[in-house]
Amino acid sequence: MNAVVDIGNTLTKLGKIHEGNRIEVISGSSVSNILEINSEIRFDYLLVSSVRQNDQDLESLQTIATNVLKLDQNTALPFHSHYKTPETLGPDRLAGIAGSQLIFPKQNNLVIDCGTCITYDFLSSNSDYLGGGISPGMTMKFKALKEFTSKLPLVELDQISDLNGLSTKECINSGVLWGTVAEIQGIINRYQTKFGEMNVLLTGGDATYFESKINTPIFVRSNLVLEGLKGILEFNK
Amino acid sequence: MNAVVDIGNTLTKLGKIHEGNRIEVISGSSVSNILEINSEIRFDYLLVSSVRQNDQDLESLQTIATNVLKLDQNTALPFHSHYKTPETLGPDRLAGIAGSQLIFPKQNNLVIDCGTCITYDFLSSNSDYLGGGISPGMTMKFKALKEFTSKLPLVELDQISDLNGLSTKECINSGVLWGTVAEIQGIINRYQTKFGEMNVLLTGGDATYFESKINTPIFVRSNLVLEGLKGILEFNK
Repeated sequence: MNAVVDIGNTLTKLGKIHEGNRIEVISGSSVSNILEINSEIRFDYLLVSSVRQNDQDLESLQTIATNVLKLDQNTALPFHSHYKTPETLGPDRLAGIAGSQLIFPKQNNLVIDCGTCITYDFLSSNSDYLGGGISPGMTMKFKALKEFTSKLPLVELDQISDLNGLSTKECINSGVLWGTVAEIQGIINRYQTKFGEMNVLLTGGDATYFESKINTPIFVRSNLVLEGLKGILEFNK
Repeated sequence: MNAVVDIGNTLTKLGKIHEGNRIEVISGSSVSNILEINSEIRFDYLLVSSVRQNDQDLESLQTIATNVLKLDQNTALPFHSHYKTPETLGPDRLAGIAGSQLIFPKQNNLVIDCGTCITYDFLSSNSDYLGGGISPGMTMKFKALKEFTSKLPLVELDQISDLNGLSTKECINSGVLWGTVAEIQGIINRYQTKFGEMNVLLTGGDATYFESKINTPIFVRSNLVLEGLKGILEFNK
């Protein structure tokens, strides 16, 4: 059996690739946390995407797999990347793009990953990866308002929010929530104006939350990064 | 001569109120910095708005004015505030609303202050202040992406940016810049949908920058907070 691992800023996910390409997902806070949960199975090939600077994660994963591969700028990809600084490109973004290509091959795809950061990545119908954007996610915005001002409190997301908040907590909640909804909607519109028709794929922790608030048909795929990693692993084996 | 002082998270501004209501503005990094520049004139009344927790600022300002008033929840206002937590309401937001009322009395006004934070505040044509929203400004977003992730660099705003960045720096620049433009545009649209026709007033450090990128007629007033403080001072004298 093969597997893929997505190490994010907040969450780490192990995807066991079952027969028929079904992915079983185990989520945890870290690689060691995942290893505690998955202590029995040993994998043949394991492809890792990590946004952290931690070589120990890779070493630890060697205890559960014969061949541990790391997704980086040297990995062969099923699309053509136009990124000018591949050494700084988050591998989760590459994996998300690969995932969109598996689902909608030879179509324009915009991948939006709503996690710690919100990343926007565009793949053209000619399989050209044309980069995108990075902005702070909702949790990061709440944290920044607390850390980088003298007086504002740390607010936790309340999913129901009036547009015009009537207390400082409500104002922060509205500004972060409706501000992020407006950002995502506006960026989608801008990509559609620039590149024409496209599929919009949403993934990441906050994806299901935004689904109902965006006025454009979107596809929510919670495990898009793991799906893409699976595709890249097959492409490289 | 009277004066007003706006102590923000990043910048402090002294506004000297000349005859004919003209405001002469002196900007600095702090109150002590302002006092160095304005060492000669002594004011009669001075109204202060501060978003910082620093009582020493007020004491220092007493060296240049006979009567130092602080804008807080006990100050009489020329409009009716519906805010439920007046003790946590930034006085600069109240001043911005008062400024909009001076310029467009008895009209719906949306005040957007693009500074360290972006604040949205709404005053109805009945002079009801109905609160608003608070979200991180562009500089804060750049800082958060660096501080709260493992690998992203600190980027300084490049005012010219493609939608789809082709390096990590370009991606962060695009995400922060176009993301913030999309946020402001989307929030304006949402207020207009909820409350109907309104004047949109932009102020704060990044205001002139957004002016050309927003698709709605807007009024940029760099010294809106000082103008509002002047109005509140007159109302209270």
